[in-house]
Amino acid sequence: MISIFCPFSWFLNRFVCVKNPHLNSMDEDILYHLDLGTKTHNLPAMFGDVKFQQNEGFCAFIRKELGLEGSEEDMQDICTGTDRYCMYKTGPVLSINHGMGIPSISIMLHELIKLLYYAKCYDVTIIRIGTSGGIGIEPGSIVITDTAVDSFFKPQFEQIILDTVVTQNTELDKELAEELLKCSKEVPDFPTLIGHTMCTYDFYEGQGRLDGALCSFSNEKKLDYLQRAYKTGIRNIEMESSVFAAMCGLCGLKAAVVCVTLLNRLECDQINLPREVLLEYQQHPQKLISIFIKKRLGRYNPK
Amino acid sequence: MISIFCPFSWFLNRFVCVKNPHLNSMDEDILYHLDLGTKTHNLPAMFGDVKFQQNEGFCAFIRKELGLEGSEEDMQDICTGTDRYCMYKTGPVLSINHGMGIPSISIMLHELIKLLYYAKCYDVTIIRIGTSGGIGIEPGSIVITDTAVDSFFKPQFEQIILDTVVTQNTELDKELAEELLKCSKEVPDFPTLIGHTMCTYDFYEGQGRLDGALCSFSNEKKLDYLQRAYKTGIRNIEMESSVFAAMCGLCGLKAAVVCVTLLNRLECDQINLPREVLLEYQQHPQKLISIFIKKRLGRYNPK
Repeated sequence: MISIFCPFSWFLNRFVCVKNPHLNSMDEDILYHLDLGTKTHNLPAMFGDVKFQQNEGFCAFIRKELGLEGSEEDMQDICTGTDRYCMYKTGPVLSINHGMGIPSISIMLHELIKLLYYAKCYDVTIIRIGTSGGIGIEPGSIVITDTAVDSFFKPQFEQIILDTVVTQNTELDKELAEELLKCSKEVPDFPTLIGHTMCTYDFYEGQGRLDGALCSFSNEKKLDYLQRAYKTGIRNIEMESSVFAAMCGLCGLKAAVVCVTLLNRLECDQINLPREVLLEYQQHPQKLISIFIKKRLGRYNPK
Repeated sequence: MISIFCPFSWFLNRFVCVKNPHLNSMDEDILYHLDLGTKTHNLPAMFGDVKFQQNEGFCAFIRKELGLEGSEEDMQDICTGTDRYCMYKTGPVLSINHGMGIPSISIMLHELIKLLYYAKCYDVTIIRIGTSGGIGIEPGSIVITDTAVDSFFKPQFEQIILDTVVTQNTELDKELAEELLKCSKEVPDFPTLIGHTMCTYDFYEGQGRLDGALCSFSNEKKLDYLQRAYKTGIRNIEMESSVFAAMCGLCGLKAAVVCVTLLNRLECDQINLPREVLLEYQQHPQKLISIFIKKRLGRYNPK
């Protein structure tokens, strides 16, 4: 559907790839946490046309935006036999949740990338949309991540492989980030910016929060940490972007992270917005991505 | 209900505690990921009688076992406004899922421990039940964890607090583990043993699996790693025990980890058991815990 981006001669380079020589020798591959398998499901028929992939419940919204309403089939969860993940497909858009934290999204990504590989998908754009804590920016703003950084502000992800620590790159696709920023000009309701995103293993002490069951530092130490983060270019904090950037980069997937900020961490720790404001903020990334997909599909008609 | 374990003079020492001086100065505490709060909910009335806490959907099973069937109220999810966690309460038993991985269970534990603290619970026993990969033991076996170890086989959890790495203790309650092992003698259908549990951040490369989207090592390296793990006393691998042991230890909660093994990792990587066998294996920890709770409540009648 977005063939203008993939002249035939490029096809072979642009298929989703895996980096695992062992997969070829497997008779069957069970994607356990997705409740799918290469023998039990016809993955190319089910998923071969996927071009966009999002990681949160986004399907109903995009169906309406793309004018694909009516088909009940689209609204069926594909991962029927598990409550770990839910997956929906609408035309070329696949949508799947990923739980909270690096380990949870990493399990999903391993199995999703194998799924896209077995389904012979190509030219796939993968976008994580979600929520985050902002640093020094107005709640409700969107941060498009250029690079995910760790708790020490380093642009890297440390993957433990057997008992060795391997450092992986966490830069995201620059052109895609710029394209998304350009789309944001069409939705003037909220500010959107490109910045670094800090990815932590912990929501409380690991993000400098004073309101967990455990806290061993002062408000001054917290503010010093967050201000140092701001100075290095970090504009928001979440818990999945580093492994997402690393794995998508290794597998040749063009990837973006687009998160709305629910609070300004220089001002508070608790998320205490009224429910309707929270729900409205959570729609900001969806609105942006919907414009991006419609533009890519040549279906964007500004009102 | 298990007052034989808490003579009055011990009460003050046995309340669930938090280790955070900042909480006292908060006017309201919103347990965001549980969709509960100290102003919006009467936590002592809702949870004050909790004595046992499990982390997986266990409620329907234990209701039946304790003869508490009939009350529809018990079957309502308490965390109604969020799809992140589900929580059920049956008499003194609270049951909550925790997602996959250290970050996900850690968010839940911060908010759950605060909940137990605000609800003025005391003498709480907290047990994680779940699934795992076994090392050198028969699938279907239960491993009761004595100590959680990291990917380097060290009995510790490294918590990043601001930008400092703090090492925490991951030993679990020895008496509780022995008490659970004793209960296992009543269910002779499956072997139960006490051993070390390795807790990793990654399900694929981090556990030496050859079947992820990424794999950079050989079968020989994998087996060498797993065999070294076995020699140090590790009998299973999962993804939550280390932070669970560390946080419960710091907050004075008697804690246990009871996981069934779904495969022997010295023999394979994929979980390819028939669904009915998987479901049966997943009931092994529930059966064991149900005997433990019934014994503690003086309601155990061996058939």
